[in-house]
Amino acid sequence: MKAIVFDNELKLDNNYAKPIPQKGEALIRVTLAGICNTDYEITKGYMGYAGVLGHEFVGIVEEVNDTDKSWLGKRVVAEISWGCDDPNCEWCAKKNYRHCPNRHTIGIWKKDGCMAEYITLPTNILFEVPENVTDEQAVFVEPLAAACEILEQLHIEPTAKVLVLGDGKLGLTTALTLNAHNLDVLLVGKHQNKLDIAKAQGVKTQLLNDFKPEKKYDVVVEATGSASGFETSMSLTKPRGVLVLKSTVATGKELNLAPIVIDEITVLGSRCGQFKPALRLLEQNRIDFSPFISKKYPIEKALEAFEANKLKDTLKILIRI
Amino acid sequence: MKAIVFDNELKLDNNYAKPIPQKGEALIRVTLAGICNTDYEITKGYMGYAGVLGHEFVGIVEEVNDTDKSWLGKRVVAEISWGCDDPNCEWCAKKNYRHCPNRHTIGIWKKDGCMAEYITLPTNILFEVPENVTDEQAVFVEPLAAACEILEQLHIEPTAKVLVLGDGKLGLTTALTLNAHNLDVLLVGKHQNKLDIAKAQGVKTQLLNDFKPEKKYDVVVEATGSASGFETSMSLTKPRGVLVLKSTVATGKELNLAPIVIDEITVLGSRCGQFKPALRLLEQNRIDFSPFISKKYPIEKALEAFEANKLKDTLKILIRI
Repeated sequence: MKAIVFDNELKLDNNYAKPIPQKGEALIRVTLAGICNTDYEITKGYMGYAGVLGHEFVGIVEEVNDTDKSWLGKRVVAEISWGCDDPNCEWCAKKNYRHCPNRHTIGIWKKDGCMAEYITLPTNILFEVPENVTDEQAVFVEPLAAACEILEQLHIEPTAKVLVLGDGKLGLTTALTLNAHNLDVLLVGKHQNKLDIAKAQGVKTQLLNDFKPEKKYDVVVEATGSASGFETSMSLTKPRGVLVLKSTVATGKELNLAPIVIDEITVLGSRCGQFKPALRLLEQNRIDFSPFISKKYPIEKALEAFEANKLKDTLKILIRI
Repeated sequence: MKAIVFDNELKLDNNYAKPIPQKGEALIRVTLAGICNTDYEITKGYMGYAGVLGHEFVGIVEEVNDTDKSWLGKRVVAEISWGCDDPNCEWCAKKNYRHCPNRHTIGIWKKDGCMAEYITLPTNILFEVPENVTDEQAVFVEPLAAACEILEQLHIEPTAKVLVLGDGKLGLTTALTLNAHNLDVLLVGKHQNKLDIAKAQGVKTQLLNDFKPEKKYDVVVEATGSASGFETSMSLTKPRGVLVLKSTVATGKELNLAPIVIDEITVLGSRCGQFKPALRLLEQNRIDFSPFISKKYPIEKALEAFEANKLKDTLKILIRI
């Protein structure tokens, strides 16, 4: 089968072995996949991963092996990770598979990804895509779930002032998600065209140049992906406030953490999330991801797609399979 | 009056003006004061403070001005900060005076400190010292309150594994405090003689050299005051765990914050605390601070006392006034 593979170099493999579903697994024919920045990081060596790339996808179940046959023919998405399910695993016992030390993570850790004609996955991590949600919306469920994760970790009071810093995919998705939960969100970024995507859906936005920095936000989400973003976020979080850290870049310089102590700030690391609330947002049509789609490429043009993903103005690149 | 003053240089002033209590204030004759590392930092320029040093003390109320006369003759301690009490101040409205932007902080910000024969303070920040608590114990109420602060900010489950890193005053006080709350605490440090102080009061301790680093602690308190302490603490905090940051030093090098995101760690800055729970611990005799006292100096030998405070093996230096 065709597959986008990274193994020291990125390539399109036309003869990658089609996977065979093991007991409890489904064989899924992938129809659409998205390029995430993590995929790009992997091509630079992140996690030391080698194999089929990709964890954002929509597909159709074509086979199941010794498991619920009602999945057959269904249009599905899948959680990014699954755990060991050992009864002694404290993470799996709490269904917090994302932190199981023996987890598999699609296209990132110990499991081939979705940028291929087929993927096999345990049926217990699948979700049927609601009928009214298109493939082009459903393919965003994983990054949307990552934004919803903030609300799993943190109770944001309805009167809280929330600031999202950064107007890339992560910042936009986060701002739209928090706005969809009726929170008082301000999105600040450097690109008017990107800010406008959030603005068109009701988010208050401001260009960084016009933004008056004040230490007055109850919650600041750092989604700039820049080295200075963390210190900027600290300076905007009010005493006893929460700085949600979504970016994973190094700070790039000596960091004075004293403001965290003096202002008793909470820094909350936030990564992947669960799909159910994200699918609900999509089903209820509360966020429209169409304006995120910069371009769609057929899998045959995968290398071109990855090049396009590097361009400054690109938001989401999709791959039709 | 005699006062220990910092104004570009540290000196003993024998003729500092005795303060006059304003409306709502008490005049307190200070009997015992403690040197905190913050005092030492101030002598190096921290906060740009100039005035009488010190915020840890016990004293006797000698006068009150237009306020409750029942304070007269009482042995008291005082919260380190008070707020503006403006009805529009959100911090004061919540009685969270420690974060009021217009606060006064004894010996640190806009208010003379306690290392003097007399100090004047609003009576509403005073606490009577319980009869069974000696001056030598009561003088520790402020750092003890700072340790209790962790429990105001964070619910630590009774089954949580707690690690305190650093066996200076801060680490010892924190470990003893959490242990006094029946938590499962391990204190790790570099000095057997200091660890033994906590061990003698029931805290599990381990020398850093014997400590097996594992990412398994639900709560890690960073109290080393060292540049590398933050990264060490990150590596020991388990996924979704909490790193309580008590030290205010700069990290001194480029910092990779990705582990905070990947493991969804919470970093909780923690500073000063309220006195009531700290006084209760002292009254119930749950922590003995006697072994913390390295030496007592009369106020006349204040400069010598500050020199002694710099010595590596010193814990607490007290000043008799």
